[in-house]
Amino acid sequence: MSPDAVRLVEVGPRDGLQNEAGVVPLAAKVALIDALSAAGLPVIEAGAFVAPGRVPQMADSAAVLAAIHRRAGVRYPVLVPNLKGLKAATEAVGVDDIAVFAAASETFSKKNINCSIAESLERLAEVAARAKDRGIAVRGYVSCVLGCPYEGAVAIDRVVEVAAALAAMGCHEISLGDTIGVGTPRRAREMVQAVAGAVPVQRLAAHFHDTYGQALANILAVLEIGVTTFDCSVAGLGGCPYAPGASGNVATEDVVYMLDGMGIASGVDLEKLRLAGLALCQTLGRPPASRAARALAARKGRGG
Amino acid sequence: MSPDAVRLVEVGPRDGLQNEAGVVPLAAKVALIDALSAAGLPVIEAGAFVAPGRVPQMADSAAVLAAIHRRAGVRYPVLVPNLKGLKAATEAVGVDDIAVFAAASETFSKKNINCSIAESLERLAEVAARAKDRGIAVRGYVSCVLGCPYEGAVAIDRVVEVAAALAAMGCHEISLGDTIGVGTPRRAREMVQAVAGAVPVQRLAAHFHDTYGQALANILAVLEIGVTTFDCSVAGLGGCPYAPGASGNVATEDVVYMLDGMGIASGVDLEKLRLAGLALCQTLGRPPASRAARALAARKGRGG
Repeated sequence: MSPDAVRLVEVGPRDGLQNEAGVVPLAAKVALIDALSAAGLPVIEAGAFVAPGRVPQMADSAAVLAAIHRRAGVRYPVLVPNLKGLKAATEAVGVDDIAVFAAASETFSKKNINCSIAESLERLAEVAARAKDRGIAVRGYVSCVLGCPYEGAVAIDRVVEVAAALAAMGCHEISLGDTIGVGTPRRAREMVQAVAGAVPVQRLAAHFHDTYGQALANILAVLEIGVTTFDCSVAGLGGCPYAPGASGNVATEDVVYMLDGMGIASGVDLEKLRLAGLALCQTLGRPPASRAARALAARKGRGG
Repeated sequence: MSPDAVRLVEVGPRDGLQNEAGVVPLAAKVALIDALSAAGLPVIEAGAFVAPGRVPQMADSAAVLAAIHRRAGVRYPVLVPNLKGLKAATEAVGVDDIAVFAAASETFSKKNINCSIAESLERLAEVAARAKDRGIAVRGYVSCVLGCPYEGAVAIDRVVEVAAALAAMGCHEISLGDTIGVGTPRRAREMVQAVAGAVPVQRLAAHFHDTYGQALANILAVLEIGVTTFDCSVAGLGGCPYAPGASGNVATEDVVYMLDGMGIASGVDLEKLRLAGLALCQTLGRPPASRAARALAARKGRGG
């Protein structure tokens, strides 16, 4: 049932680094992004135009975008919460891809972006329309698709509604995010199948966090029902600052290791990817959260 | 495709602890095993009767078996490499389950047990026959089923041959071990399907190590083709002393979290299991390697 090829969306430089406690130097971000594109990642979420007071790690996104070496064919989307963010993004050098986000949980929406789901969708429709006018592609994120840190279970119908609303406002791709990593394979599959009834599965991406160690199993589960786009984060960076207990996104290295083993092409060179993550982790002063990265490093250490 | 219920074989007290650098006190082993049976594990590999010089951590297995509280219905197999081990095991209190092991890789067999696969199978056939005479059930392990630290790829045909030989000598169950954790879902499934052509799938168990983060995805892959017995290790303890770079078995907590989420009964209470692993990890002085255990602990820490 598995596809021959998938597309990986690297979210480490944004979803990953936004969560870091310490300041990550601009040069390290730029080096990371350039190393990721050199490793073959086709889409790299490069930053966010959000209130710097709320997410200080993303305050230098314009400078990051100006400094990276843009590789032909690689897309560098940035996260944008509202019209103000869109304005800042379009004033930055070369933004032609943005991502917007809404929650499938009412409480999460209120705590995270201080408005109801309906209000956030209205706001995003305006952002999407303006972006479209300027020829900017828009990706939509739905958060809390398999659970909410405040509400617990989230109704699949609600996920379908929000995903359909984002698709209707022109998002070319809808990324379904298990923000707090509580999902398991059967439920992940049911959720994706339900959403695929409203938005073609080719336009869906799966975005799993590895909080409970379930991310790779969830990826396998939805890979087998037609999902071919997966968000992941080099070295397992990240989490969500507003979701208590959320640990990192699934590590890109672990995903690529699985895909390589399954004979599914991603275009990513695992060794270059590992080194990209390692360099960043050396800056951060901690080992990669990726098991594959750690095992490969141990093998290298023995000259293997 | 998934079953309604599975059987978990807890191997932490043996496959896990045999790899510890420091000495684990007898009392801690006994407490761990008793906490695991109280958590609902139906099979707990409790020790090994191997040369104490080679695996010092298992030198007190007879004392462990004498001290544990045997819960009705729970089985406590011990690993036995040869007739000498069988003798020691039968002299110990109440051994009515043993496990024997062979490799699917010739080089691994030679380096690990100093004889060819064929020689090891001859030796084990004698052990199995004697055990049977005494009414002792025998489980067979095949190691290196998805790769060998020395040879790299391992032919599936060889795995089938070794599994069939163990079944033929009377092993009631064959556990297929990805000793170095290099396997990925498609290959895992192909391997299990091939073995199931020689040994009924009901008699197969899957034993995945999480070295490259693939274990849970591999479990899902073979769960969906009929495997209902899985080896796992509380807190992700373990590895293989003779397989360089091999990290722990898949963490029982991560497996139970997935099964609970999928509505597949294992009979294991996740919270009791987590506390069993936590107590042992406190003795070892390090956090559990289980992501689910860590996430649940973080949630508890917030009073959640």
